Amino acid sequence: MANEGRTVWSHRHLLGIEQLSAGDIESILTTASSFKEILGRPIRKVPTLRGMTVVNLFFESSTRTRISFELAEKRLSADMVNFSVSGSSVSKGETLLDTARNIEAMKIDMVVMRHSSPGAPHFLSRYLSSQIINAGDGAHEHPTQALLDLMTLRERYPTFKDLRVTLVGDIMHSRVAMSNILALKKMGARVAVCGPPTMIPRDIQRLGVNVTHSLREAIQHSDVLNVLRIQLERQQVGLFPSVREYHNVFGITRDKLSKAPKPLTIMHPGPMNRGVEIDSDVADGEHSVILEQVTNGVAVRMAVLYMLAGEGSELGKPIVT
Amino acid sequence: MANEGRTVWSHRHLLGIEQLSAGDIESILTTASSFKEILGRPIRKVPTLRGMTVVNLFFESSTRTRISFELAEKRLSADMVNFSVSGSSVSKGETLLDTARNIEAMKIDMVVMRHSSPGAPHFLSRYLSSQIINAGDGAHEHPTQALLDLMTLRERYPTFKDLRVTLVGDIMHSRVAMSNILALKKMGARVAVCGPPTMIPRDIQRLGVNVTHSLREAIQHSDVLNVLRIQLERQQVGLFPSVREYHNVFGITRDKLSKAPKPLTIMHPGPMNRGVEIDSDVADGEHSVILEQVTNGVAVRMAVLYMLAGEGSELGKPIVT
Amino acid sequence: MANEGRTVWSHRHLLGIEQLSAGDIESILTTASSFKEILGRPIRKVPTLRGMTVVNLFFESSTRTRISFELAEKRLSADMVNFSVSGSSVSKGETLLDTARNIEAMKIDMVVMRHSSPGAPHFLSRYLSSQIINAGDGAHEHPTQALLDLMTLRERYPTFKDLRVTLVGDIMHSRVAMSNILALKKMGARVAVCGPPTMIPRDIQRLGVNVTHSLREAIQHSDVLNVLRIQLERQQVGLFPSVREYHNVFGITRDKLSKAPKPLTIMHPGPMNRGVEIDSDVADGEHSVILEQVTNGVAVRMAVLYMLAGEGSELGKPIVT
Repeated sequence: MANEGRTVWSHRHLLGIEQLSAGDIESILTTASSFKEILGRPIRKVPTLRGMTVVNLFFESSTRTRISFELAEKRLSADMVNFSVSGSSVSKGETLLDTARNIEAMKIDMVVMRHSSPGAPHFLSRYLSSQIINAGDGAHEHPTQALLDLMTLRERYPTFKDLRVTLVGDIMHSRVAMSNILALKKMGARVAVCGPPTMIPRDIQRLGVNVTHSLREAIQHSDVLNVLRIQLERQQVGLFPSVREYHNVFGITRDKLSKAPKPLTIMHPGPMNRGVEIDSDVADGEHSVILEQVTNGVAVRMAVLYMLAGEGSELGKPIVT
Repeated sequence: MANEGRTVWSHRHLLGIEQLSAGDIESILTTASSFKEILGRPIRKVPTLRGMTVVNLFFESSTRTRISFELAEKRLSADMVNFSVSGSSVSKGETLLDTARNIEAMKIDMVVMRHSSPGAPHFLSRYLSSQIINAGDGAHEHPTQALLDLMTLRERYPTFKDLRVTLVGDIMHSRVAMSNILALKKMGARVAVCGPPTMIPRDIQRLGVNVTHSLREAIQHSDVLNVLRIQLERQQVGLFPSVREYHNVFGITRDKLSKAPKPLTIMHPGPMNRGVEIDSDVADGEHSVILEQVTNGVAVRMAVLYMLAGEGSELGKPIVT
Repeated sequence: MANEGRTVWSHRHLLGIEQLSAGDIESILTTASSFKEILGRPIRKVPTLRGMTVVNLFFESSTRTRISFELAEKRLSADMVNFSVSGSSVSKGETLLDTARNIEAMKIDMVVMRHSSPGAPHFLSRYLSSQIINAGDGAHEHPTQALLDLMTLRERYPTFKDLRVTLVGDIMHSRVAMSNILALKKMGARVAVCGPPTMIPRDIQRLGVNVTHSLREAIQHSDVLNVLRIQLERQQVGLFPSVREYHNVFGITRDKLSKAPKPLTIMHPGPMNRGVEIDSDVADGEHSVILEQVTNGVAVRMAVLYMLAGEGSELGKPIVT
């Protein structure tokens, strides 16, 4: 269904999956596939964004996502600066808006932003003329993670239509879950969530997802499991009784998976707690696409930067190779 | 007075405003204007310093100034490495001179340096063959800040001659104040300082500035207010009684400004404490040039890097665009 | 003996000196000399590794070594990202292997790695397809340090054969010592170690080195002293009684050196504790090559990156200048 429903891209920002149409998502995935091809070459660099400046504005530490964006930016030949919160003006009492306006006044083109407050990038997008990419805002959205997950699924399945994807774990505190649900529903997939009742939002059905507290049932009726990282510190506030208990009930093991009618594709956004939410033989098994997700993350981020740059500049930027 | 008094640039380092002539300052501001034009282009990059290496050697954290230099360096196509104090050999007991000599031995061209000790860059300049740019040495000087402030003023006023600029706040602990006073006096401006007696050095008049402790008087007789950041931690050592009191007496408000015979240009080096030394409606008002200062900061730093590179290399480097 | 015994380079990784032949070492030193010539040019950059990506994966902080590698990478035009442990997934409980596999999945070419565990890079080399350069693994090896030390010696002596090099200080905890011993022995030098008995491994003679606890004797019978940094925190665990005592017995002073039959070449890997293991007049004296070591460090690292890149790619990369 590659280009089916593809639309003209017209977004200045990537704030969340919420703002995208199915056609937008298709456009990004198709563009990302082109960039993935470039990642496989000996010279993994194109001059597409030469002379443009991207600022990685991270108010929460995240080596993994930051490096993925950083590599995407460098491979598009953008100039890039990292701004992280420690030692910055933020600790001197400056407002978020002043920090952002100051950086923008240095004449930059795009801001990749992570912040612990839901809606922080949306807020800034109303005041800045730079283009903003949300790299995670609190427990709200993490759109590039959902896009890389969908890219990974599209490489394995002919269509998202009626594909059965179950998100397993702490749905309530997960921006990865929220963005995946929104994206998969827009593409026509059948989405379920599975986890302990303490970790499933009460009104999640409104998003059109099924809820189960039985991993056995989830395994029985899914094509794909997207296994979320369990925050071990949640245990202390009573969301689950113990790591051992969590693993027993919701940990993905080869034994539990063997009850499935056919092999399930296994995804995980990382970093993994091996032996907790997922066992090593599953994570490293033949149906795991976990490392493919990481590779696709760079390709998807290149695609998003490229498409926003085309929108932001007067002339659309061709992929120069 | 654009090129009036312009001289041949012959400095190996930018240690402070103290060492510059009025002609030197003019040269920098004129060059910075050319670079500002480049900052407005879709491709904000010139190959001028390609193959040269600049080290940002920051012994005090300063995201804002470091990023401004970093962007200036990248837009001139220099290679750049950041060296910051945390986790470095400095914490292993190495002397400043050894640290600097070691970095220099890696064959670099320029060092942009911030240090808490007044005179640290001057000290290093006697031992290194690299070119040094002072990005702030204790409460002594911050020359690029003064240069960007003057660039901002030159964009609004036909001449510095007799322009009345008042610096408001903690003059005693401010390298921004010191460099501004030196630069403005050299250019023929009339400079005053205004603040509580605890924050004004006793012998400041020797620099040829007027002193007032009355903000009302300052507003009455100035064209420009440069509002300094108040360090909130100074309160604890008794330099001012309370934030509320400081705001009442020295905070810049729309109401106080309304008493001026004509609108004053408002400057602030950032980061701002909104509601303390400056109110939001003033900071964001039509006479504020605060964000223009930030933009000019990148242009001025490009100009300084460019002019020093011309001096340091055997052949002068043309601005290749 | 420049090209004598030079062999075809066939290593995918640089894990340690242990894996190298004398011919390999010669090849690196000869290549490094070519790169050193480039470091002396006004434009210190070659496009050799353009489009390749190097990750500096530092699990221990090391500004000096990291910057040396970073400059080497930038001057070869590689794309580079820094990954340091603070704030990374490692602190979230991810395994070393998962961290490395994830970074590799972002399609990178080489990993420069420092880790506190001996053998960590060797371990990763069995699982990754990227090329690995050991930038220090615990007290085990630090091969590029030994190579830069040898490069510095080769610039001063016609042959390594029978050159008498003594390593002075804490041999037991030093990866610099271990890599130097291995490299010097392979090249035919006569190697001795000198230090307090608490800091010399019991079975060090097995490596073919002489042991002495008398600095006077060492000075009498050496051409070169390589003075190791003393970790001041070792004092607390009783390895030496006091800094003053250490300096008296093992500190390198002009007075002690004056007893030598001919001037000794003085080396130190840095950062130095002046007045402890080495006096300032020695460190800055005419026979010190300490800063030359630092310069050669960049050249050696360029050579290693270049030679590994030639091995890793299908086509050997010419040094394009």
